[in-house]
Amino acid sequence: MKGNKDDGKRKGGLQVSVLRIGYRPVRDDRMTTHAALVSRAFGAECIYMTEVDPSIKDTIDSVCTRWGRQEFRVKIVKSWKDLARRWKTENPSGKVVHLTMYGININEAIDQLKNESTILVVIGAEKVPREAFDIADFNIAIGNQPHSEVAALAVFLDRIFGGEELAKNFSDARLRIIPTPIGKKVSEVTPDNSG
Amino acid sequence: MKGNKDDGKRKGGLQVSVLRIGYRPVRDDRMTTHAALVSRAFGAECIYMTEVDPSIKDTIDSVCTRWGRQEFRVKIVKSWKDLARRWKTENPSGKVVHLTMYGININEAIDQLKNESTILVVIGAEKVPREAFDIADFNIAIGNQPHSEVAALAVFLDRIFGGEELAKNFSDARLRIIPTPIGKKVSEVTPDNSG
Repeated sequence: MKGNKDDGKRKGGLQVSVLRIGYRPVRDDRMTTHAALVSRAFGAECIYMTEVDPSIKDTIDSVCTRWGRQEFRVKIVKSWKDLARRWKTENPSGKVVHLTMYGININEAIDQLKNESTILVVIGAEKVPREAFDIADFNIAIGNQPHSEVAALAVFLDRIFGGEELAKNFSDARLRIIPTPIGKKVSEVTPDNSG
Repeated sequence: MKGNKDDGKRKGGLQVSVLRIGYRPVRDDRMTTHAALVSRAFGAECIYMTEVDPSIKDTIDSVCTRWGRQEFRVKIVKSWKDLARRWKTENPSGKVVHLTMYGININEAIDQLKNESTILVVIGAEKVPREAFDIADFNIAIGNQPHSEVAALAVFLDRIFGGEELAKNFSDARLRIIPTPIGKKVSEVTPDNSG
C-alpha cells in the first residue's frame, strides 16, 4: 500500500471527501454509482453515502481492484447530519461545500476555495433538506441552472484540482489504459512493471 | 425568440451539439435526462438521442420553459450512425469528438479543440460500438479512468467554453436564481423586467 499514499497526496495537500445525501432505491442506483466513480476518478479520498444497494459498493470495489486506488472507500453512514457534524469536529479547519444551483457561482468562488486544504463536498439527489444549506460553509453553484449532481461534482473536482487529477496513474492498478487516437489499448500491469 | 439567438452565440461562435448513443429503457432514464440537462445548462445547442421514454423530452421542455433557452432541443433520431454521417456532410469543417476513457487525455487535446468552431460531442451508455471510435475525428478521454458519461460531458463543455457557459443568463427565462450564500432565492421574470 506504500505507493498509494503518494497517489493520494494532492496538490498542496488538498484533501477532498464527498458526502451524498438522499437516495431513492433503484431509481437512483446508476446516479449513485456514477457519483462514486466520479469521486474516485477525480481525486476524492472517499464518498460517504446513506444505505444503498450493496451491489453499488461491490461495483466500486471491483473498479478499484482492477483500475487502482484501492485506498478509495465507499463509506456507508446512517445519518448524513451526524456524519457532517462529526467531520467538522474532526477537521476544525476543514470546509463543507454544498453544491446547489441556488448557491454562489463557482466562477466567483473558485479562487477562495483553492486556498482550502480539507473539503467535504455535499451533493444531493433531487430534493435537498434545508439543513444541508445551513451546515455548509459554502453553498456553491456549478452554474445557476438545473442539471445533475454527478456533473456538478465532476466539474467542481476538476476545477479545484486544476485538471491534475485527470493525469494521474495509480500504482496499484492491474489494468492501465494506453491513451490512443482510435480504438482501445489496455495494458495489464504485472508486479514487475508496476513501478 | 430574438433574445435567445444572442444567448445561443458562444465565444468565437463555437457551436456544440451532443449525440447520445445507446439507451436501455428505465435503467438509463435518469442518466439520459441528466445528459440532456447538462447539454442545455453547459451551452450545447441540442442533444440527439435514439428513441427514449417520452417523459424525458417533456422534462427537458418544461425546464426550458421555466428556466429559459427555449431554443434548446432534444432531437430524437432513428439511427445514430445516419445522424453522425449527415452531420458531417452538413458541417464539412465540423469535428466529431467522441468521449471515451480509451482516448487521448483532454489535458493534451484541449488547446487544439479550442480552435474548432463546430463540434458534435458523442457520448455513450455503458458499451459503445466500435463504429463510434471510427466515425470520430477525435477520441478524447476525460481522464483514462472509468466514471460517467454525464460527468465527462460536463467537464468537456466546461473546458471547451472556458467556464463562460456557467455565467450566462437566459433572456427567455420565467424563473431566475439570485445566487445567495445560504438558502434559495428565485425571482419570477415578468415581461417587464426580462431585459
